[in-house]
Amino acid sequence: MPSFTVYKGSKDGSIQKSSTSKPELTADQVLLRITASGLCGTDAHYRTQDMALGHEGAGVVEAVGPSVRYLKAGDRVGWGYEHDCCGACQWCLSGRETYCPERAIYGLANLDQGSFATHAVWREAFLFRIPDELSDEEAAPLMCGGATVFNALHMYDIQPTARVGVIGVGGLGHLAIQFAAKMGCDVVVFSGTNSKKEEAMKLGAKEFFATKGKTELDIGKKVDALLVTTSMKPDWNLYFPLMAPDSVIFPISVAEGNLELPYMPLLLNGIRIQGSFVAPRLNHRQMLDFAARHGIKPILMKFPMTTEGITEAMQTLKDGRMRYRGVLVPETKA
Amino acid sequence: MPSFTVYKGSKDGSIQKSSTSKPELTADQVLLRITASGLCGTDAHYRTQDMALGHEGAGVVEAVGPSVRYLKAGDRVGWGYEHDCCGACQWCLSGRETYCPERAIYGLANLDQGSFATHAVWREAFLFRIPDELSDEEAAPLMCGGATVFNALHMYDIQPTARVGVIGVGGLGHLAIQFAAKMGCDVVVFSGTNSKKEEAMKLGAKEFFATKGKTELDIGKKVDALLVTTSMKPDWNLYFPLMAPDSVIFPISVAEGNLELPYMPLLLNGIRIQGSFVAPRLNHRQMLDFAARHGIKPILMKFPMTTEGITEAMQTLKDGRMRYRGVLVPETKA
Repeated sequence: MPSFTVYKGSKDGSIQKSSTSKPELTADQVLLRITASGLCGTDAHYRTQDMALGHEGAGVVEAVGPSVRYLKAGDRVGWGYEHDCCGACQWCLSGRETYCPERAIYGLANLDQGSFATHAVWREAFLFRIPDELSDEEAAPLMCGGATVFNALHMYDIQPTARVGVIGVGGLGHLAIQFAAKMGCDVVVFSGTNSKKEEAMKLGAKEFFATKGKTELDIGKKVDALLVTTSMKPDWNLYFPLMAPDSVIFPISVAEGNLELPYMPLLLNGIRIQGSFVAPRLNHRQMLDFAARHGIKPILMKFPMTTEGITEAMQTLKDGRMRYRGVLVPETKA
Repeated sequence: MPSFTVYKGSKDGSIQKSSTSKPELTADQVLLRITASGLCGTDAHYRTQDMALGHEGAGVVEAVGPSVRYLKAGDRVGWGYEHDCCGACQWCLSGRETYCPERAIYGLANLDQGSFATHAVWREAFLFRIPDELSDEEAAPLMCGGATVFNALHMYDIQPTARVGVIGVGGLGHLAIQFAAKMGCDVVVFSGTNSKKEEAMKLGAKEFFATKGKTELDIGKKVDALLVTTSMKPDWNLYFPLMAPDSVIFPISVAEGNLELPYMPLLLNGIRIQGSFVAPRLNHRQMLDFAARHGIKPILMKFPMTTEGITEAMQTLKDGRMRYRGVLVPETKA
């Protein structure tokens, strides 16, 4: 009977070390020893909940249940936001199981375990092999952050000929720049100041615009797709005039409240606002293959997988000092 | 040199009879005698502008310019919101000339003539033959209203297997119901009260829900597409829970102000807000063919094409008494 350490949120937002026990492995369950976990904005969002935190996991298979077909002890795998689905509804049958009405996702299901932990037990069907080209630490942040930005571009058919705008150079943005650039797109980055310009250009951006204090921007050719990766809502009056007709805006970071947009410019230019969630499994797998093939990797700041390490990582994220994705690793490796 | 009567808006909103003169026909210009014009919400929107009104035209060719290739005197044709485009940009070259940066559209170009008039001169390239199955009066409201709802469904690939919601049974809504039903869709109608229920069911709706005073609705299976055809903005908290994952909302009627939407439900369910404008010419032609083939026709209230007739028609629309599209016809026919 596996028993392991997990780190949980709590009412006052402090990180609590705790433990979880699971029954013997059944069906296609897999026991993993966790080797790395990314830290995502959503984890900070849930830190005041009594639940195990973390959903960008990477680890090594320790044991497998009786129906496991493809994995064996020692294999390197990762997992992300979704842990299970019904397999029978129209969404599951059309490769969009992230919308399954019975989906088990982070924050709503399996609250007793997460990737801020020593171990976890998940269904084989929701685990992804980590390609040889990526270390566990590099792979972990791709399991949600990478999957989310790749999915927006890939699921909604953004063309290699497109001009793609990315608002924000952070955990999501610095991956979005790389994916879009390697897909062949013309990547334009918007950030508050020029402090991240050099990094953004190295990651594949062709142009960079500092937006702080600006009420209008001249970017030449308009953008066909815009990924909003900042948690702050953008000034739409600044960005709408930069949108090409028949273009698409992806607001992909989690935020409270309503989305308020200029109405007639949306109609007159046929602009689309596309809600986009994490990647279904096929897209997730393609994301990992694509990242491996093109050397797409997150830029990491490492923290120990301890109460203090998690707390410090969350503070670093909150203060806007993360460059660019936090990753938690077991203490012996930190 | 053609000279003809037009009806214009004015600062105080009164309709003014006026006249327009045009030089001799050049290039692919066509002189039309107008036989019918639809009345659209946008006309009322522009009634305080010093411009010729009307953009749902139908008429008969009286004379043709030297480069006209397909039309001849006596042919029945119609026209809509767009009058010209550059023919060379990426939008024109991809069948989306409604987004051409040089597009000439109602309210922004050719302010000296409209479809509230005795005649008009337009480019052959922006005229549409009226199929034999449709009278001029029936065809006129299809030139904007029909094209707009058909375009939303057709340009964005709404499938015949889709469940399609239509909010509002008015000029746009009563055409949307017919088009969606004949495309094979499962059509669900939302209207304030049950007063239009019988009509909506006759037009092809399978279900009808009165929404007045409701804070939630149980419609069973959720909708894959939702057309908002009312000029009032809908209560999104009522409609968002009715949207299937990966579904699309078309806000197609003209309205002031911002669009304010629930944010996280949009993300978590991958919902798309699709700005949609009038139909490019190919879609417009397909719309007319489709309407002719399936007997899709507007339900009309006729008014004389006079200052008084236009004023009365606009008042009828404003009062919510139009059943369901107003059409203006020359006095001898009214």
